[in-house]
Amino acid sequence: MSNIAIVIFDKFTDLDLFLMWDLLNRVRTSDWSVKILGENDTHVSATGISIATQGRIEKANDADAVLFVSGQGTRDRITDDAWLSKFRLDPESQLIGSICSGSLILAKLGLLDGKSATTYPTSKALLETFGVDVVEKPFVQQGNIGTAGGCLAQQYLIGWVVDSLAGGDWKELILKSIQPVGEGLFFDDAEKLAALYRAPAKAVTN
Amino acid sequence: MSNIAIVIFDKFTDLDLFLMWDLLNRVRTSDWSVKILGENDTHVSATGISIATQGRIEKANDADAVLFVSGQGTRDRITDDAWLSKFRLDPESQLIGSICSGSLILAKLGLLDGKSATTYPTSKALLETFGVDVVEKPFVQQGNIGTAGGCLAQQYLIGWVVDSLAGGDWKELILKSIQPVGEGLFFDDAEKLAALYRAPAKAVTN
Repeated sequence: MSNIAIVIFDKFTDLDLFLMWDLLNRVRTSDWSVKILGENDTHVSATGISIATQGRIEKANDADAVLFVSGQGTRDRITDDAWLSKFRLDPESQLIGSICSGSLILAKLGLLDGKSATTYPTSKALLETFGVDVVEKPFVQQGNIGTAGGCLAQQYLIGWVVDSLAGGDWKELILKSIQPVGEGLFFDDAEKLAALYRAPAKAVTN
Repeated sequence: MSNIAIVIFDKFTDLDLFLMWDLLNRVRTSDWSVKILGENDTHVSATGISIATQGRIEKANDADAVLFVSGQGTRDRITDDAWLSKFRLDPESQLIGSICSGSLILAKLGLLDGKSATTYPTSKALLETFGVDVVEKPFVQQGNIGTAGGCLAQQYLIGWVVDSLAGGDWKELILKSIQPVGEGLFFDDAEKLAALYRAPAKAVTN
């Protein structure tokens, strides 16, 4: 079983939840579970969209992969000791990742000590105050820690998680499935895409 | 005032709502309004996410731009005459667009008669049954009708809407703001991005 936890909070960036959520839900194996976790029953995005959570943030401690979203709300989270203290993440046994300013949370949790990472341009200076070597790349992976910068860089982050946990052709297929037609996705891919609509199956289908 | 309507329905593709929603909400002018419309108070996405609507679909008839999302639910909508009959769209005075299989709804409404369009690979054959010339391109615009195929092609669709209705540098700025760091978005863009966080203003800020 692969359990993936996406951690959200108030004032999250809509796209930074829903690109990873949608991509992760395209994996159609029966042992694949993706949950949106928060500290409340619902959290409201930066644009005012209310999203129901599917579990509390403590559940992230038992997940195989833990992904932090981003948004204006990260600034409040990194000063909320009660919230931060609920995480007992283990980079030896869990994949841990972030998009954009979610890297600030990883840094505050001590997960980026002595590491390189990336983030959103407007969060670079703050991330550097944690002693992190911030590099201008879409995705930085060191061991089981991966940080991505710029919303669409979620493709690299989720590609890494899916390749690590689902294997097979899933990474290639789910990333292909969202590309613009004529630019990575083609009409003659229709048959291949059918695997994304099938009922979950143990075996990876080609 | 620019009113933009995004029409959703049950079993919509999460990314096909939230990429356009997030991009459109990055425009920070005071005369800019984006609403999610549906026939019910809430609609549930293909992955089970419940989203509150902000108005009924009839409001699309008065919008400056009307955008249809996609997903498995489009197959139900194009056979729902009561739902279809609520639309009185006018391609002379409104921008009308779709992502992926949303083009099936445009076709059913008669908006693609004698036109070229694009769609998702798995919807190509069905779209052709409406007599539409389906072309393998990410975005096809003819007059005030624009169709996009492949989730990430929403960038072209929304770029067109934003350039047409907001003008200025907004298209370039909002599309830049979601690119991967090092691949279209750079750390020294931080100052430029600040315009996306300012309070709405009449004047376009550089």
